Amino acid sequence: MNNRIYFDNAATTYMDPKVLEAMMPYLTERFGNPSSIYSYGRETRLAVENARKTVAKLLNAHPAEIFFTSGGTESDNTAIAAAVRDLGCKRIISSAIEHHAVEHTIDFFKCSNDVEVDYVEVLPDGHIDMQHLEKLLQDAKEKTLVSLMHANNEIGNLLDIDAVGNLCKKYNAYFHADTVQTVGHYPLNLRATPVHFITGAAHKFHGPKGVGILYINENVKINPLIKGGSQERNMRAGTENIYGIVGFAKALEIAMADYETDSKKILGIKNYMAAQLKQHIPEITFNGDTFGNSLYTVLNVSFPKTERSEMILFNLDINNICVSGGSACTSGANQGSHVIRVINKNPNQIPIRFSFSKYNTHEEVDIVVQKLKELL
Amino acid sequence: MNNRIYFDNAATTYMDPKVLEAMMPYLTERFGNPSSIYSYGRETRLAVENARKTVAKLLNAHPAEIFFTSGGTESDNTAIAAAVRDLGCKRIISSAIEHHAVEHTIDFFKCSNDVEVDYVEVLPDGHIDMQHLEKLLQDAKEKTLVSLMHANNEIGNLLDIDAVGNLCKKYNAYFHADTVQTVGHYPLNLRATPVHFITGAAHKFHGPKGVGILYINENVKINPLIKGGSQERNMRAGTENIYGIVGFAKALEIAMADYETDSKKILGIKNYMAAQLKQHIPEITFNGDTFGNSLYTVLNVSFPKTERSEMILFNLDINNICVSGGSACTSGANQGSHVIRVINKNPNQIPIRFSFSKYNTHEEVDIVVQKLKELL
Repeated sequence: MNNRIYFDNAATTYMDPKVLEAMMPYLTERFGNPSSIYSYGRETRLAVENARKTVAKLLNAHPAEIFFTSGGTESDNTAIAAAVRDLGCKRIISSAIEHHAVEHTIDFFKCSNDVEVDYVEVLPDGHIDMQHLEKLLQDAKEKTLVSLMHANNEIGNLLDIDAVGNLCKKYNAYFHADTVQTVGHYPLNLRATPVHFITGAAHKFHGPKGVGILYINENVKINPLIKGGSQERNMRAGTENIYGIVGFAKALEIAMADYETDSKKILGIKNYMAAQLKQHIPEITFNGDTFGNSLYTVLNVSFPKTERSEMILFNLDINNICVSGGSACTSGANQGSHVIRVINKNPNQIPIRFSFSKYNTHEEVDIVVQKLKELL
Repeated sequence: MNNRIYFDNAATTYMDPKVLEAMMPYLTERFGNPSSIYSYGRETRLAVENARKTVAKLLNAHPAEIFFTSGGTESDNTAIAAAVRDLGCKRIISSAIEHHAVEHTIDFFKCSNDVEVDYVEVLPDGHIDMQHLEKLLQDAKEKTLVSLMHANNEIGNLLDIDAVGNLCKKYNAYFHADTVQTVGHYPLNLRATPVHFITGAAHKFHGPKGVGILYINENVKINPLIKGGSQERNMRAGTENIYGIVGFAKALEIAMADYETDSKKILGIKNYMAAQLKQHIPEITFNGDTFGNSLYTVLNVSFPKTERSEMILFNLDINNICVSGGSACTSGANQGSHVIRVINKNPNQIPIRFSFSKYNTHEEVDIVVQKLKELL
């Protein structure tokens, strides 16, 4: 990790060496195709099925409800496409602050006139307006999918998925929650959560890139997005990324075993950083419900716009400090954050997302705050 | 590799240790999200773009024509979906011996009435009837996609993609070739090949599982199958599987550098095995154009059906010999081979695919043939 300070853990994370260790046999000697019927294939088949059981157990789901994919984006795409094509949803209720994996997939079905889309209002603190959501659900004449993320990747706001799920149940709607920022960060209890689809990506919690999960509630029957072989019980074709799948399970296992300790530590860092910023940098504000229903990993701060603050990401980078202006998935496009635009209409502010992991320290916070003081 | 004999290299291959070595930095210290704008992201962005340049150069394509995906199946799905949704194809010409990644994707669009599908006739030697293909193309009133695989994964037959590509050009059709069994096994020269889409999967040539490519000819503009972030120049959303991408490029580099030596060696093994089988096992026949236009990696043999030969896969497995009855993608389903059914209508035969790699030896062939003699 050199002398670099990495405060962009919502974009991706350092892989835990214990995860890589668990993956190594499948990157070397255990390479058999899990679909092959000989013993050599069966040993990797067993690894995949054990990974599935581990993941299911940790999320309190049934193994038959867990499907491995190439990542969170593919999982979100699969869930939404299935709701439209297989479950007969003619209407989607979503929000303007979803991840692009959800937003652009919904746009696709909207543009092809497969669905009409309603956007639930977002309150100034970044939370969904639950009364508006219920009103939209009441008005539904068509079979409806509600797609709302569990935690916002930019501002950290946490959705009450139980409350949304119960509303969906009441109005007979399907519910998809993009949980990419919460799987591996919070204990989920899917048997007790009224949700039809959730998604996860290993690289958000110290696992490998290129592997994710889609949870599909056992009462929902859909067709695959990626068609071909009969892998994943006909739900996701393509030779299994065995080492990725093993890595996903191991990363989740570690994350849940250490949850109490890690989450407390990381929340401590977030709160310390917020306090230090308040103390040392004038006129900053926080985006989202920062100290309320919020990810313990994310701190989104607005700095007053000045010539210096406009260069802040650049200058932090020069000083080996990694933070981001928005989500990584959109930063390449340089269009600014669609989330911040929705909740904070002040154009005279520069938003920066700091996001933390178990590998960060209070000392790093001190260095970053000191550097910000110098740079601003 | 223990004392196991692995003759199922068309299903998946052992990862070359040099490939893993190239991947290791990206499985450990270099984990930055390539979409992040700071230097830490730029170093992985650079790795991805260098991999793209390497792959493009080795296939004689332009880097802008190479897109990384999660594997061959996703690539095939993307090409076919794009032809239907973005290129206006209302008709697909394919064959009954395609890989399920192609066959089932075409079935999907056929069932949803997006396209009509014609199947070109397959000759008894497993080759496509080119005259029939031209007749089908002549009759086309609608914009047409031709989807035919470069090499059949079960019987090894090689298609003359230049001839098919030129026919498609003549009749103004799009051409998709599933090249999953040839990328990394043959030098391709895409600038000189009239094809719009080709696909590859690293794990078929000693690279990692979970990563593939889709080549899209620069004159073709399509939309992504997996929607979301702006990765892969808006063509494939989702955080890049960096180590997989680096592994793909390294595996292709090694494969092409060693092509002359490896292909000669492997062809030697195939021919030796065929000769030894002919000599020692009575009444065997070969499926496909085995000694003509055929993969040097695949030998598909029919054994006369007896009580003993029906147990042969099982008994070879007990003896630590890995071979397959058909493709791995379908073997789990135990339905037998759809390819063999098309070209060989004799129900009194048991087909077995032996497929070889650079790690196999003549000694292994001797052991397997000896074991077959004992078992049959």
